[in-house]
Amino acid sequence: MNLSSAEDVRALPRNIRVSTLANGMTIVTDRMDHLESAALGIWVKAGSRDETPQEHGIAHLLEHMAFKGTNSRTARDIAVQIENVGGDVNAATSAETTSFYARVLKNDVPLAIDILADILNNSLFDESELAREQHVILQEIGAAQDSPEDVVFDNFQNVAFANQPLGRPIMGTPTTVSSFKPKHIRTYLEDHYHGPNMVLSASGNVDHDEVVKMAETRFGAFGSTPTRPPEECFYTGGESLVSKDLMEAQIVMGFEGRAYHARDFYASQVLSTLLGGGMSSRLFQEVREKHGLCYSIYAFHWGFSDTGLFGIHAATEDADIPKLIPVMLEQLRLAGEEIRQDELDRARAQISAGLMMSLESPASRAGQIARQILLFGRPISNEELMERLNALTAERLRDLSSRLFTESVPTIAAIGPVSHVPGQSEIADMLGAPATIAAQ
Amino acid sequence: MNLSSAEDVRALPRNIRVSTLANGMTIVTDRMDHLESAALGIWVKAGSRDETPQEHGIAHLLEHMAFKGTNSRTARDIAVQIENVGGDVNAATSAETTSFYARVLKNDVPLAIDILADILNNSLFDESELAREQHVILQEIGAAQDSPEDVVFDNFQNVAFANQPLGRPIMGTPTTVSSFKPKHIRTYLEDHYHGPNMVLSASGNVDHDEVVKMAETRFGAFGSTPTRPPEECFYTGGESLVSKDLMEAQIVMGFEGRAYHARDFYASQVLSTLLGGGMSSRLFQEVREKHGLCYSIYAFHWGFSDTGLFGIHAATEDADIPKLIPVMLEQLRLAGEEIRQDELDRARAQISAGLMMSLESPASRAGQIARQILLFGRPISNEELMERLNALTAERLRDLSSRLFTESVPTIAAIGPVSHVPGQSEIADMLGAPATIAAQ
Repeated sequence: MNLSSAEDVRALPRNIRVSTLANGMTIVTDRMDHLESAALGIWVKAGSRDETPQEHGIAHLLEHMAFKGTNSRTARDIAVQIENVGGDVNAATSAETTSFYARVLKNDVPLAIDILADILNNSLFDESELAREQHVILQEIGAAQDSPEDVVFDNFQNVAFANQPLGRPIMGTPTTVSSFKPKHIRTYLEDHYHGPNMVLSASGNVDHDEVVKMAETRFGAFGSTPTRPPEECFYTGGESLVSKDLMEAQIVMGFEGRAYHARDFYASQVLSTLLGGGMSSRLFQEVREKHGLCYSIYAFHWGFSDTGLFGIHAATEDADIPKLIPVMLEQLRLAGEEIRQDELDRARAQISAGLMMSLESPASRAGQIARQILLFGRPISNEELMERLNALTAERLRDLSSRLFTESVPTIAAIGPVSHVPGQSEIADMLGAPATIAAQ
Repeated sequence: MNLSSAEDVRALPRNIRVSTLANGMTIVTDRMDHLESAALGIWVKAGSRDETPQEHGIAHLLEHMAFKGTNSRTARDIAVQIENVGGDVNAATSAETTSFYARVLKNDVPLAIDILADILNNSLFDESELAREQHVILQEIGAAQDSPEDVVFDNFQNVAFANQPLGRPIMGTPTTVSSFKPKHIRTYLEDHYHGPNMVLSASGNVDHDEVVKMAETRFGAFGSTPTRPPEECFYTGGESLVSKDLMEAQIVMGFEGRAYHARDFYASQVLSTLLGGGMSSRLFQEVREKHGLCYSIYAFHWGFSDTGLFGIHAATEDADIPKLIPVMLEQLRLAGEEIRQDELDRARAQISAGLMMSLESPASRAGQIARQILLFGRPISNEELMERLNALTAERLRDLSSRLFTESVPTIAAIGPVSHVPGQSEIADMLGAPATIAAQ
């Protein structure tokens, strides 16, 4: 099940071509001739979990500061040049990845590559720009704190991976964000932006050879030494119940999930679809349709390189919580008793059609292929993904369910009227799971 | 500038084909042979502003109840049948439109049409399903009240169109939502869902003749009499400052905009892009980039059939508000003094590229064409849209700006730390606008 196996030499799917620069950076293109546009970007295998405790929030700060001016372009030049041609650029930071991407018409691909290369090679990280941007990020943090849903997910991850980089909020704290000087950003960039963990991915109306030629002259200066993978993180489970005057309690319950390369990664993805991925899913049908206990309920499974997180999100009012929690937990218990073939088939059909439709968007394609290269070392065709999904059986999912919700100590995070939200040990009791995690 | 002129017989763009059923319902397809999927839906020219005061929230309730079972499908059947083939269905309600749509693989288009037709023709509106769904909507309302951004936009529209249907929240209030019986939903449906204001729009891998053939047998029962347009609404302007313990104040400032058919509709759209549509826009550059006064700032222009709303949204902390407001207002004033050609060109390039890229998504196409038919009576090609944009001059935009921000009484809505947010008359003073609107 190790997808990065070098022996796997299946033909590449679609019109995908892959090249590697001398410094190890991967250049991948996925040509869609019928389009008038392209989506492209740089994906870097470095994110918030690669930060030292002193660097908390610097991956995200770098993502912001990359747009604040280079030795040949001011911040305004960057914005004006890309928007003059109707394009746009943006960026995103996650725990394990940082990405910088652009959407442009086909003739503007060279401009987009030039700008993305410029901001990663030649950013000035000017002190007065930094001071302004630190203030902007403090406001971004403030806005997130005003959003109960943002808060509950931050708290959820925080207690699921207690005292570890993977549990920290990606934006950092006002104190850490305010503490950074330009040199700290430069150090993080130099430590983590190396060819072997960088991918330039372009989908749409693009020419592979031209993209590679441009990339050679513009990304050749990045280091060629592989970077050290981040310290391993361990799921701890935990509890965060925050009382706040809100109409609805935001509740996220979670369990240890599966890493990308784990045997049960795909099974966990399918299980989250089956339990809470659509209107026909067990949780939606039971909690919302049969009992009318909430507006929003869904399940999710997040894979990381060395661990995972399986979760269920629900938002509901105080009076419904005592009814909602037992209905939710009963569904988790029942999944360990039986998974029907028709449910498995439907979950697979949803994932399969979703993959097919996502192929119609160049932005989805570029991101998907970039992540596959960073995680598995190569692009993976939908056929191959479907083979893996088709190998799953209902019994395998049932077996996974019987373990997933009982083998690890649960995580519970909630904000709002939380007096009826059970604590971690109460949930563990109800599920027959351990109440505290064994020492690592 | 009246795009619905019957004399306009330009060739239809792309692979678009339009047919009309005997009852006046329009069937439009936009064939994209290279896709494996399709997006399709029913768009109805009826929304929250078509409700009587006693019906407040019923358009949105109908949108929910349409999925709760027909005489041949239970709510679960609807969800299971569409998700069995990996598709999904959803719906949305706005002030002037309600839509029900599906994304499916190409072979499942007949199933999707059959389900959409079934839920609009044969829904049972069962009493016990209704009771459950009313409770679900109360929770949806509660969740929106917990989101400061949702609240500020509801309040903004509420005071901009004071005491009129266009100003009311689309979801209704807990009291009105709880008051409805099945017969009220049926009455609203029968009053407003008539062929002449319904469009079936399908984009992607679809066959026009097959779609029309299916539609004939499945949508023929809807009435053929044109419905009465809703009562005309008038922009009033107004003020809603709500003090709340939040990190950031959410602020929306607004002015009377332009109706879809108005002479300055396109100019207003371009102006909103130029002032606050991207990273190079005046407001983003001045407020965020030069002064670092917020994380989020953008302008928008919403057209309605008889009026419009031009607005600016910003979120910022208490201490920055006294600096932010004058910077914002100064930008509005300066736009009335000069608009540069390069700014106009860039805004046009952004809109043009955005249109081109939206053509790559079948869901965008289906929605765009449906709305064009409901508003203008026919699909409008991008070439034609660009002709209209290209006819605009910098002087015309400057002239519009000199009027837009001073001819109407302003609207201001804010929630959070609002003590430094100026009131309506203070803003009017600073802009040289009237402080109260003339009697209609």
